[in-house]
Amino acid sequence: MNMYDIITKKKHGETLSEEEIRFAVNGFTDGSIPDYQMSALLMAICLKGMNDSETAAMTFAMRDSGSIADLSAIPGLKADKHSTGGVGDKVSLLVGPMVASLGVPVAKMSGRGLGHTGGTIDKLESIPGFSVTLSNEKFMENVKKTGLAIVGQSDDLAPADKKMYALRDVTATVDSIPLIAASIMSKKLVSGSDVIVLDVTMGSGAFMKTLPDAIMLAETMVRIGEASGKKVYAVITDMNQVLGTYVGNALEVREAVYALKGDIAEDLKRTCLKIAGLMLLGCKKADSLFEAEQMLSEVLQDGRAFESFCAFVKAQGGDVKYIKDPELLPKAACKRVVKAEEDGYLVSMNAETVGRSSVILGAGREKKGDPIDMAAGIENYAKVGHRFQKGDTLGILYTNREESLDAAEKLYRSAFCFGALPVAEPTTIYGIVDETGFHPL
Amino acid sequence: MNMYDIITKKKHGETLSEEEIRFAVNGFTDGSIPDYQMSALLMAICLKGMNDSETAAMTFAMRDSGSIADLSAIPGLKADKHSTGGVGDKVSLLVGPMVASLGVPVAKMSGRGLGHTGGTIDKLESIPGFSVTLSNEKFMENVKKTGLAIVGQSDDLAPADKKMYALRDVTATVDSIPLIAASIMSKKLVSGSDVIVLDVTMGSGAFMKTLPDAIMLAETMVRIGEASGKKVYAVITDMNQVLGTYVGNALEVREAVYALKGDIAEDLKRTCLKIAGLMLLGCKKADSLFEAEQMLSEVLQDGRAFESFCAFVKAQGGDVKYIKDPELLPKAACKRVVKAEEDGYLVSMNAETVGRSSVILGAGREKKGDPIDMAAGIENYAKVGHRFQKGDTLGILYTNREESLDAAEKLYRSAFCFGALPVAEPTTIYGIVDETGFHPL
Repeated sequence: MNMYDIITKKKHGETLSEEEIRFAVNGFTDGSIPDYQMSALLMAICLKGMNDSETAAMTFAMRDSGSIADLSAIPGLKADKHSTGGVGDKVSLLVGPMVASLGVPVAKMSGRGLGHTGGTIDKLESIPGFSVTLSNEKFMENVKKTGLAIVGQSDDLAPADKKMYALRDVTATVDSIPLIAASIMSKKLVSGSDVIVLDVTMGSGAFMKTLPDAIMLAETMVRIGEASGKKVYAVITDMNQVLGTYVGNALEVREAVYALKGDIAEDLKRTCLKIAGLMLLGCKKADSLFEAEQMLSEVLQDGRAFESFCAFVKAQGGDVKYIKDPELLPKAACKRVVKAEEDGYLVSMNAETVGRSSVILGAGREKKGDPIDMAAGIENYAKVGHRFQKGDTLGILYTNREESLDAAEKLYRSAFCFGALPVAEPTTIYGIVDETGFHPL
Repeated sequence: MNMYDIITKKKHGETLSEEEIRFAVNGFTDGSIPDYQMSALLMAICLKGMNDSETAAMTFAMRDSGSIADLSAIPGLKADKHSTGGVGDKVSLLVGPMVASLGVPVAKMSGRGLGHTGGTIDKLESIPGFSVTLSNEKFMENVKKTGLAIVGQSDDLAPADKKMYALRDVTATVDSIPLIAASIMSKKLVSGSDVIVLDVTMGSGAFMKTLPDAIMLAETMVRIGEASGKKVYAVITDMNQVLGTYVGNALEVREAVYALKGDIAEDLKRTCLKIAGLMLLGCKKADSLFEAEQMLSEVLQDGRAFESFCAFVKAQGGDVKYIKDPELLPKAACKRVVKAEEDGYLVSMNAETVGRSSVILGAGREKKGDPIDMAAGIENYAKVGHRFQKGDTLGILYTNREESLDAAEKLYRSAFCFGALPVAEPTTIYGIVDETGFHPL
């Protein structure tokens, strides 16, 4: 077996065997296959595709390239969730404590933000004292004690995925559904949970721009889950506009805290109930999704989800005072209110553009390692279908870099398209994918 | 401009601008663009193609990556030829002296053999004393004096092509018609001749396996030539069987010497007359191809071509005694006569397989730098359409490595397919391509 023949086979659109895929992934990871051969194979995969068995083989090869988290010391079924990325996506901050408060342990590894999307780890770091690095013992102890722990991704899990992603990132080979599915699922499979709920975002602020692509990615990942013996659901959610109201690290934590106390935006609530509901259902804590969502609505109302969040923050060293009174969280020195310049209905929003304007304000990173301004971000009232009159507030920009305001406002305004005629409010959730396929909602 | 965007554009099947192609080629050549990005672009080009203007832009960027030979000190129009490779292809040894004897100077750079095809430079080195490395002054002086010089490819010509070819060779990105055309034409354009005749081989022993592919490659290269201001013709020749009788370095030189004295196989003669004829026509030494071929037949008959060959060999240090009596050329210690095992018509030959059996005998290289046995090779009488009786000689294998004979014979025999019914002898020349397109013969 040699890499040249494997590249040739894929270039001609043929199906690679499990052995060939393992050979390529392992050889690239251990350095015996050079990056220029791997990038040729990745481009051939982008253009010729991979079928389900190839995608599963690649996922499993990447999963097996490092150690796999062992959560067996935590009793019961464990649940995990993953989002393919969005603007204002604070869902992980909510569903973790929601399901933990109902007895489903969540031992989660999360990423940092890059480009126009934020990362859960960055958001949590806006809470003074909060540590996203725990020893393995402490991580397990916290999950056992509070039902929830969220840490940064460990370096020894799925090293093949890290190395391949770094190469894809510089060779324009990111946007391939089988490669995206294998990358996400390899990280999820090494995390050790029994039930995985995937939030596949779709729209202007997401990686998948169309519903068919989102369904294809979701179905691919669910089938990989099935092949691996895990219970995997996917929810296809809208990312044609900001989810909830806030974009930015401390701003999103603040919104999450109010939401956990019951004051929650409707789109955010629907998304969290659906994702958390499937986590409960998969862990057999409810007999139906309907029942699960009812249980979850209760823990949002009666304060149990909020209590669970407080216990989680405290166990990871965060100062709970900032959670009890989120107005104490870091605040930006400068703000600018952006007002509508004419009357009209908001016809569409480019959510990626909104995300990029939050990066200009300091809330995100252009490239890995860039510093983040925890207080920066956007309070966004522009929701598609709403009618605005000249002078109405579309949003408020927050930053500690006053000089960024003009550019951020200009970009933020460019995200919107207004029209004279009413348009329908967009759907929040398009449907659910399980092993039997896509079920529209 | 950045390489990531250029890769993305080609991945989506868009047309690259001349600036983008120069940026990629120059950056890769100077090392500012890493090989893993170039291999991703090359794979995208293999799968999405390039149009004529992109292919010309890539050719010119590669041409301009190093110095360009200046032949202006040699009076008159200079002609060059290039073959895309074949088995038993000794055409360069013949057409060089043929056209030189009629006053067309040929200042040629040639390559070494690799895989199943031989190289002109290797063949010439089987003449004791012959040097394929000349100083620039000596090279020019020889062309002026004898009308012909053939040397190895200089390292400072088209370095971009060398670097790109080395990468394509290990990333399965060789078989792309625009990339092949750009590579060949960049080397031809830097060689400085005014008229270029391309021998595009087609069939089982050639890189192009079908006539449409061969025509497409030929037309692409002729159009590049047109864009560069050179006069370029292509001849599409058959490589479904060995050209002439012999395969192997000294064996082919011996065949060429007899041919230059008028004793020439019919298929070899047709091919040489057509290619040399177009060289004469392009250099305006004849009014028609018909007239050119008549002039060339004469120089083969009356010894002028042979005299020209002797002068050329002598000027490059070769001992002319071996040319005057080619039986003195290196001879192999071992031979094996391969006989037909049954009666039948030769229906088809895999010429690449014959080439590979000559490599086993020592006549060629598996990889760059392998040593060559100058005396090794095959005397081949198996021509498609001929009828053989059991016991008739198909060919004779020559080698100095006796231990290679069994494997070489087995492989050589596997190249042939015999049948009970007569088949037509294959065409030698399918047609000519000029700037107006393909003209079947």
